[in-house]
Parts: sequence; C-alpha cells; structure tokens
Amino acid sequence: MTIVACQQLSPLIANLKHNIDLSVVAVSEARAAGGEVIVLPELVTTGYAFESRAEAKSVAITPSNIIFEKWRSAAGPGHYVIGGFVEDGPGDSVFNSLAIVGDDIPTTIYRKLHLWNTEKSIFTAGSAAPPVIQTRFGMLGAIICYDLEFPELTRLMARKGTQLLTVPTNWPLVERPKGEWPPEVIIGMAAARTNRMAVACCDRGGTERGIEWTSGTSIISADGWVVADSSECTLVIASLDLELATDKQISNQNNLFGDLRGDIYGP
Amino acid sequence: MTIVACQQLSPLIANLKHNIDLSVVAVSEARAAGGEVIVLPELVTTGYAFESRAEAKSVAITPSNIIFEKWRSAAGPGHYVIGGFVEDGPGDSVFNSLAIVGDDIPTTIYRKLHLWNTEKSIFTAGSAAPPVIQTRFGMLGAIICYDLEFPELTRLMARKGTQLLTVPTNWPLVERPKGEWPPEVIIGMAAARTNRMAVACCDRGGTERGIEWTSGTSIISADGWVVADSSECTLVIASLDLELATDKQISNQNNLFGDLRGDIYGP
Repeated sequence: MTIVACQQLSPLIANLKHNIDLSVVAVSEARAAGGEVIVLPELVTTGYAFESRAEAKSVAITPSNIIFEKWRSAAGPGHYVIGGFVEDGPGDSVFNSLAIVGDDIPTTIYRKLHLWNTEKSIFTAGSAAPPVIQTRFGMLGAIICYDLEFPELTRLMARKGTQLLTVPTNWPLVERPKGEWPPEVIIGMAAARTNRMAVACCDRGGTERGIEWTSGTSIISADGWVVADSSECTLVIASLDLELATDKQISNQNNLFGDLRGDIYGP
Repeated sequence: MTIVACQQLSPLIANLKHNIDLSVVAVSEARAAGGEVIVLPELVTTGYAFESRAEAKSVAITPSNIIFEKWRSAAGPGHYVIGGFVEDGPGDSVFNSLAIVGDDIPTTIYRKLHLWNTEKSIFTAGSAAPPVIQTRFGMLGAIICYDLEFPELTRLMARKGTQLLTVPTNWPLVERPKGEWPPEVIIGMAAARTNRMAVACCDRGGTERGIEWTSGTSIISADGWVVADSSECTLVIASLDLELATDKQISNQNNLFGDLRGDIYGP
C-alpha cells in the first residue's frame, strides 16, 4: 500500500516568496501525516489568474530553482513531490509546468499540453508526452488539470504503465446538480476505471481575482471510486493499492488492453 | 428538443415469442408517452444468460424478421427504435447485434465489437464500426454495453457527428459505494461531457439464471449529467437538446476537438 497525500492550498497570486513557504510547509505536514507521494496544486508557486504574460514571467522559475530542493528535503527520503509552477522559457515565453522530485530520481519537468482558455494568451503549450517514471512505489505519471479531460492522454499514460496518475489542478467552479461530484472528478473516475489506474487530483481552494475554485481534490482508486476528498483547504490522504493497476484482467475473459479494437479506432 | 425514451425491460431467457410481444408493447407505451427516439435493452428479444451457443442459435433471427417491422410500426411515423437481438450468422455463429429502425431510414444493423466475458464463448465479435445515421432529430449513433467502456470508441462516434449515442445494455450488478452511480453510468457521463454528446443507456432489469442486473437505465445530457433514470422496470423518458452536441466550443478559446493533441497520442 502507498500513502498518497494531496495538499489543497490557496496560493497568493504572483507572490513567489509566500507560495514557496506555503508549499514547503504543506509538504512537511503531508510527510508528518505519513504521505509518501505528495501532490500539490497546479501553479502552486504563483497562483493562476495572471493579468498578462509579463506578470507570469515576473514569477517564472527554472528547474534549478531552490524550491525543488526544498520540496525534496521536506518530503524526506524515498518520498516524492509533484507540484506545479510557472516555468521560464525562451524570450518572453512561459510554460504551465510541473516538477516531480524525489531523492532517487532526477527532477522531472512536464509542460502542460492542453491549455485552458485564457492560459492560451499566457503560456506556451508543451510539446512532449507527460512523464511516467519508475519509483519505489511503482510507475508514477503526472499531467495537469485540463489534460485529464482527454481520454486519449489518460489511456496513453496507462499503456505506458502508470499505476498512479497525479494531476495538479486549478479547477474553476462550474455548476453541477446537487449531490454530484464535480465534472472533472467524474472524468477522473472514468479514466481510473477504464484503465484500472489510480488517479490523485490535487486542486486549489480559495478565490482569486474573482475566480472561485472547485476545491475538488480527490484521490481515486484504480477501480474508479473516490476514497478521499475534501472541499476545504486541507490535507487529503489515502492509502492506495497501486499493485492493482498492474493487472488489467477485469474478468475471466476480459483484459482492458487486450480488448482494444485497434482495427476500428486505431492503435 | 427531442424526447428520448428508454424501456427498462426484463425479457425471458430464450423465449422469443414472449420477448417480441414484450418489446412491441414497450415501444407502443413509449410512443404513447411521447417518445420519439425509443431505446430497448441489449438482447431484448432473447435474454442474456445462454447456456451454450446452440441455445443462442435457437433464438437467433435475421434483419428480415417481422419484429423490426413491428417495432417501426409501433413507434409511429418519424420515430426511431434501437434494440438488441441475437443475429443469426453463418454456420453455427451468432452475433450480439442491435437494429436501428425508422420509417425514413433503412434498417441498420450493428454487431457488438467488445464482448464481455462468457459472451466470447457464444458470440462472434463484429468487424465494422458502429453506425452513425442522419435522422429527423440529428445524428444518431448506437453501440452496445461494454463498448461504452472504450473511450476510443465513444470519441470516434462523436467525431463522426453523433449527437445522441444510444446504448442498449445488460449490466450485471457490481458493488459500488453507497450513493454512487453504477460505474458504467459514470463512464457514460464522462463520455458525454468529454465529447459534448448525449448518451442514452437502456439497461434491463430482473434476474436471470442467477445474474442480478444493475437496472441502471440513464439518460445523460450532452453536458454529462443524468437527467432521467430508474432502478425499476419502467419507462425512463427525457427531453434532450441534441443541438448542443453540434457545438464543441466549451470556452472562448477551447474546442473539444480543436484541442486534441494528435502529435502526442495519434489522430
């Protein structure tokens, strides 16, 4: 069993110093609670609702920034942290990126492929597939927010062996019927179940420049059920059997990948 | 707006005569309630839990069977019926098929692509993509049960223009946490929302040779919410805006298909 911890935080827009401290304390708390794989929100170092590319650029950092060493150190030996940041790019460009850090892996950067709405005016989209890396707890993957809504991508991650898909997010609140999960969580539950892969979505909370956030952090088991969630800015933690994701046989005669009909819809 | 009606029935195993009458009465009832697109369960003419291929063969019919004319007539002019049957094939083969009938379309047959568990010992899998046909109410698609659990296929259906995806099903009951939709419904909700396409799943009820059914009939809007459902053997009916599915623009700068990253996961 692996203890997965998501820290639903409310960073301050464009306040790098504040958010670095906030995130490092959050990683320490998650570790103290037993967290082995610790997930932080999208853009946790900066907040989300930038007024311009220049404002995002002013808080952009590179993978050599000290924050990643701080996350690694706060997480403790043999543990991993996945969190989002504004990555400095060539010229005036910036990326909506995440880092995966741990003491037995190289720091791994991923640049968001699917940009949401006004992000397209701020960020340059990534051009490489998301990472799937071998860790002490099995194969760990990471994508960002709107990426989750493309089943082609979650299938790709599963076919590359992902046992735990981590998803730093900033979900703007949208209407939903009473009693329903947020739509993004439903999409995550379906991605988990159709691929037998655990999914840990770490959302943010609070409000920012008029945007209200869903606060929809959800840890979803490989059979597609939410096992931990909270609508508060708090730690969400669960113990997951990641071995389940290595076995795609879902009945005597059905294998999730063996049943794919590449002849009909492509490989 | 289009009135979609699903008749959650409990056919008798291998009793063609009984089930034909049951289904024709059900279509008449659905029409009387205002149903314009009427969906029946998978294998409604025969039941599901065959002991052998020979037993299935004994109740197999061809597309020229009188039942399809009866469905068309019971549905009334300008209306459509989608329902499942055992289709007679060459030699000892049989298919798990559905028919789409209406007075302004040729009868259209689809053979299930993804067979569930022991179905593999009974049925021959289909070899052609599911139909998407122009109707008075827009583009109508149809797949069968476990087919729904392959997002590659639901995406293909959406990209071919499907506005309403009908899904005759027989869902064996599986465990789920209290208060949750059946897992297949969650997968259907995600397929609807990630494609902005309405989905109408018509399940069966009752029990059959020890199998308890989910009775999970659900009509799902193009924004991914269940708008009508029942756990009883009854008519489930809802009025749907199928025009919504023709517009894939989900924010000022996001188009569900325009945002696809074929360079990462294939076209």
